[in-house]
Amino acid sequence: MRPSGRTADQMRPVRLEPGFAKYAEGSCLVKFGETHVLCAATVEERVPPFLRNTGRGWVTAEYGMLPRSTHSRTEREASRGKQSGRTQEIQRLVGRSLRAVTNLEGFGERQIRLDCDVLQADGGTRTAAITGSWVALYLAFAGLVKQGAIAQIPLIGQVGAVSCGLSDGNPVLDLDYAEDSTAQADANFVLTDKDAIVEVQGTAEKDPFSEEQFTAMLGLAKKGIAELMVLQRQAVGK
Amino acid sequence: MRPSGRTADQMRPVRLEPGFAKYAEGSCLVKFGETHVLCAATVEERVPPFLRNTGRGWVTAEYGMLPRSTHSRTEREASRGKQSGRTQEIQRLVGRSLRAVTNLEGFGERQIRLDCDVLQADGGTRTAAITGSWVALYLAFAGLVKQGAIAQIPLIGQVGAVSCGLSDGNPVLDLDYAEDSTAQADANFVLTDKDAIVEVQGTAEKDPFSEEQFTAMLGLAKKGIAELMVLQRQAVGK
Amino acid sequence: MRPSGRTADQMRPVRLEPGFAKYAEGSCLVKFGETHVLCAATVEERVPPFLRNTGRGWVTAEYGMLPRSTHSRTEREASRGKQSGRTQEIQRLVGRSLRAVTNLEGFGERQIRLDCDVLQADGGTRTAAITGSWVALYLAFAGLVKQGAIAQIPLIGQVGAVSCGLSDGNPVLDLDYAEDSTAQADANFVLTDKDAIVEVQGTAEKDPFSEEQFTAMLGLAKKGIAELMVLQRQAVGK
Amino acid sequence: MRPSGRTADQMRPVRLEPGFAKYAEGSCLVKFGETHVLCAATVEERVPPFLRNTGRGWVTAEYGMLPRSTHSRTEREASRGKQSGRTQEIQRLVGRSLRAVTNLEGFGERQIRLDCDVLQADGGTRTAAITGSWVALYLAFAGLVKQGAIAQIPLIGQVGAVSCGLSDGNPVLDLDYAEDSTAQADANFVLTDKDAIVEVQGTAEKDPFSEEQFTAMLGLAKKGIAELMVLQRQAVGK
Amino acid sequence: MRPSGRTADQMRPVRLEPGFAKYAEGSCLVKFGETHVLCAATVEERVPPFLRNTGRGWVTAEYGMLPRSTHSRTEREASRGKQSGRTQEIQRLVGRSLRAVTNLEGFGERQIRLDCDVLQADGGTRTAAITGSWVALYLAFAGLVKQGAIAQIPLIGQVGAVSCGLSDGNPVLDLDYAEDSTAQADANFVLTDKDAIVEVQGTAEKDPFSEEQFTAMLGLAKKGIAELMVLQRQAVGK
Amino acid sequence: MRPSGRTADQMRPVRLEPGFAKYAEGSCLVKFGETHVLCAATVEERVPPFLRNTGRGWVTAEYGMLPRSTHSRTEREASRGKQSGRTQEIQRLVGRSLRAVTNLEGFGERQIRLDCDVLQADGGTRTAAITGSWVALYLAFAGLVKQGAIAQIPLIGQVGAVSCGLSDGNPVLDLDYAEDSTAQADANFVLTDKDAIVEVQGTAEKDPFSEEQFTAMLGLAKKGIAELMVLQRQAVGK
Repeated sequence: MRPSGRTADQMRPVRLEPGFAKYAEGSCLVKFGETHVLCAATVEERVPPFLRNTGRGWVTAEYGMLPRSTHSRTEREASRGKQSGRTQEIQRLVGRSLRAVTNLEGFGERQIRLDCDVLQADGGTRTAAITGSWVALYLAFAGLVKQGAIAQIPLIGQVGAVSCGLSDGNPVLDLDYAEDSTAQADANFVLTDKDAIVEVQGTAEKDPFSEEQFTAMLGLAKKGIAELMVLQRQAVGK
Repeated sequence: MRPSGRTADQMRPVRLEPGFAKYAEGSCLVKFGETHVLCAATVEERVPPFLRNTGRGWVTAEYGMLPRSTHSRTEREASRGKQSGRTQEIQRLVGRSLRAVTNLEGFGERQIRLDCDVLQADGGTRTAAITGSWVALYLAFAGLVKQGAIAQIPLIGQVGAVSCGLSDGNPVLDLDYAEDSTAQADANFVLTDKDAIVEVQGTAEKDPFSEEQFTAMLGLAKKGIAELMVLQRQAVGK
Repeated sequence: MRPSGRTADQMRPVRLEPGFAKYAEGSCLVKFGETHVLCAATVEERVPPFLRNTGRGWVTAEYGMLPRSTHSRTEREASRGKQSGRTQEIQRLVGRSLRAVTNLEGFGERQIRLDCDVLQADGGTRTAAITGSWVALYLAFAGLVKQGAIAQIPLIGQVGAVSCGLSDGNPVLDLDYAEDSTAQADANFVLTDKDAIVEVQGTAEKDPFSEEQFTAMLGLAKKGIAELMVLQRQAVGK
Repeated sequence: MRPSGRTADQMRPVRLEPGFAKYAEGSCLVKFGETHVLCAATVEERVPPFLRNTGRGWVTAEYGMLPRSTHSRTEREASRGKQSGRTQEIQRLVGRSLRAVTNLEGFGERQIRLDCDVLQADGGTRTAAITGSWVALYLAFAGLVKQGAIAQIPLIGQVGAVSCGLSDGNPVLDLDYAEDSTAQADANFVLTDKDAIVEVQGTAEKDPFSEEQFTAMLGLAKKGIAELMVLQRQAVGK
Repeated sequence: MRPSGRTADQMRPVRLEPGFAKYAEGSCLVKFGETHVLCAATVEERVPPFLRNTGRGWVTAEYGMLPRSTHSRTEREASRGKQSGRTQEIQRLVGRSLRAVTNLEGFGERQIRLDCDVLQADGGTRTAAITGSWVALYLAFAGLVKQGAIAQIPLIGQVGAVSCGLSDGNPVLDLDYAEDSTAQADANFVLTDKDAIVEVQGTAEKDPFSEEQFTAMLGLAKKGIAELMVLQRQAVGK
Repeated sequence: MRPSGRTADQMRPVRLEPGFAKYAEGSCLVKFGETHVLCAATVEERVPPFLRNTGRGWVTAEYGMLPRSTHSRTEREASRGKQSGRTQEIQRLVGRSLRAVTNLEGFGERQIRLDCDVLQADGGTRTAAITGSWVALYLAFAGLVKQGAIAQIPLIGQVGAVSCGLSDGNPVLDLDYAEDSTAQADANFVLTDKDAIVEVQGTAEKDPFSEEQFTAMLGLAKKGIAELMVLQRQAVGK
């Protein structure tokens, strides 16, 4: 039995609230249970230097946690004067995941910047951030279409993410904080709507794990992400 | 006529949502119209070095804005690697304002840290932050009382804040962003429930103003803050 | 009786020494008693990015203290690697105060930068800095007129500043360090030669204060600043 | 045909030179073809704060590249003033990988710090760093045994790492820079001598990949890492 | 003929004003012509970690320039967020030079910190800083003697410094800015009152120079420093 | 007798390995006994701002130490977030030394950047860095000649460096770490192939030294550097 009473292949209640950030070009508040992440997309009419005059655009992400999003307070990175290695890992992951389903030739020399800010953290913030950012990105592109700036939404497909873990040797889906901190191992899966792998990151926190265990976790992830994608399509009105 | 259709002495709709941050020892989401600030209090069982072994506690604050809380995106301070002068001014102001109504001898060698994070910004974030932080601080103290750590809430009174401005020479209460950016001058008032002044900061953005204009703004602030204090008392159940 | 033996409405001896910094385009060493601040103006033939191609100029300020200007040594900000929140507050205040009396359309796309460096600190450094910077700024503009770069000095009026405080409940003018560290409250006033308010910042260090007390402090400030302005005019030979 | 003429399941020539760093407590220069990484272990007689008085030790890593280790020069991180996100990701990965095979209760309150410095970079520096660091760590522990500080080497097993990629849809082992920069996807595998997974990180640089492709890459990695482990045992004289 | 009209072996007018900084434990304003440096000594009742419990003291220095001490404005290091390489070189040089004539066992576990701040710069600031710092240090020690904290002044001798240069191939003493910027080479000499060398730094700005030229510069330095030492003794009343 | 058994005027065994860094435009691994420094030259097709449109080039250097190049570990500067004063001193010294023998008008608006990275440190790293950098610079220029980018190598001569010290009052050549840490004084000499002085830096670590002692050290340096220059010529095939 899991601490939350969920079955091994059961997601936490998930909610996607599109348009939560009033001023952003696209946004989504995503909730995986008690994990709440606000994803906001900004359209910038310029690209990083390495893309100038190539006709291509870029998608990038930044990530942060409110200091008191966590059970005990986390130091404010702005006040420390630098982002942690964990923060940088996550924001790079979010950016790569979204670029993998975006046609970078399809929206001119623009940059879409996704700000993923964790309002409340109970495990799985990076996977929630990826899932919600896809909605925010879609809505930002829809805005560009509506303005006539581009002809169609340059997304090749959907991308979603979830974590899985090994708890007493058993694979379980969508770890919350209580499970995450005791899991033997955990893995984050970023998949497309065609079950293709965009990113996979597995870490043995305590004991190395077997190929079979890894495959079982991937199976759970496919199930969970399929559910997320239904909600994404609802959120963008597709 | 004001851009929002309000009368000169009319506040925006104000809402205080106590307990918004699930994990904090005290919290309040404060809304002044479209300005939304999450205030979260953390109780730390230690004080800054200059207070060690004095038996006194401390109250301090940090302030931040989500990058896309603003109409156009604001650079993330954690990513820039430092807090702006404006951020530092505001967090110092919030800390001083709360200390002015706190009996620092009344809660042992503890530090209460208020995190004020702007989720959405439409003018007046610093005054909203002070108003909401008082609620968060009260609730954190109430928690210490409930745990038996202290005998009573060490607050001497209430503190609230509002901005006023001069618009076409006329004093108006509680500026929103549209007014703030065109005002001739503006002033932030931090008052107690006895109409005493804790902090006052007036700035002539365009034209220097007269003592009479200043006094008129202070009069408006007294009215607005009195309204805020009713809501604060409701929020803490007094 | 004040620690210095002054009456409640008496300034410390004030001296303005124009031209103290040999290489600056304008400068003034200002002394409010034992508080000595060197204000040096530099004319730069370019403006910040947000003003390019607008035909407008800018006035800005930086502030610093020599490490041993203070009674006990203050850490060197260059060595710590950042400016304190207090430093940033002060330099922003100085810049705003001077811009309030400058016609920014009157000297082309130039930036005047005021460096206010405290050689000795005995309270009131920010108000001395504003008062001396006006002289330095005037002299820098006078130099541009002399060179034929501009037709006339683009200053709308004078600006000066002084602090007032409440000592045992009584308002006093121009706090020195001994008074400042024990005052119940203090306020900095920045006024024009027409008694208009440019900036006002009042802080209750210990006890909140009343509107009447504030008004009394403003009255003292008007008297003190009027005296400063006579000296400013002498210093610039007007 | 691969650019290097290797077969799909062929490693580059690998060399491990134990004891390369004269002053370190353990060291290994590892070469995967033209990728050369110097791994040096330092034994510190103290642990990070969170482990004090627990009786447990810690293993951590730092990573850097000589500016001209790369085909075109990479900016020096010490001169930029911060480590890149990539550097932080890699050093965290190396540390976790080694801790996964170390009995942290088996060497007292000591910290072993692995410095992984890239002298020459031709792809796969992080996997080479993990592979060489295991040798350096083993030798540092062997030194502690020899000094009588600990009774036996607190390593549960071996750990090694290699990257695999998809090149024109085909899985290949141990990417060099030429392959890495054109691969459709790549994955880094960190395995133990029992083929258990310590870390796995797969990224679709261009096109998302299938579970079958991932499994094929894992199969190649098992083969390559088994070869590396023979060399590791030789290097430590086992 | 030198730009200043001085002969080759002629110092600029030198003035040492002891006690210039009212609050410092020892101080000296030193003027080498238009170069003005304020040297202030602070006595700290603690030493750096490497000297704790050794019974030895330490002497160290920090150096800074007011932004407008120079002919054209120099960026403020506190605002840039770091000290330049030049600043660090100079403050290390000043510290070493003073330690060379101080008996570090003679004043307990104290640190004397010398703050050398350039008020006006016309070449030779580092040599003026050393010369003036000796006076400030002497006076700080004299204060400790007077308080009874130590029995005698722990200075082995005097130390002074001057620069020399090659101008059109001819050695000249005490370069001012005009000469410094056109000199073929220059050297800074730090000597004791027994003509022993504490530090020597020679640099060929344009053309390498000969041993003979170096020796001639050293000869000039001996003459100049002997003159400085007379003034130092006067300044400390010896 | 010296700790190493060398005679007073004997260099450690010196080896110069040109072309050590495979990807650099010029490189040299230089060994002075157990001190090993990798010098790598990068040709950049642009100059610093102050040289734009002057037709002149620039030569600059950066310096770093691998954390475990030293007997006990040195903190990684990239991780500390800044370069030490010592590092900055050394890299400025290397840059100046090479510029002194380079015709900056002879290779267009290009910058050659020398990266000097210490792989192993046993005293004298800065002098080894200068000596090896000359070889790397020569080879980089030779590459430009070969490509037809410039007509001839724009080096006016050779430059080499060595340290000397006073050990028990006796001058000795080329200090290793054991001598360096006990020497009474030491000096670094940078000379040309015509025995002209490019840089000289002498420091009394313990006792001030005499002109005679300095001259004796310079004599040793001339001998040692003459030997280095034979090796430099061999390394570049001249």
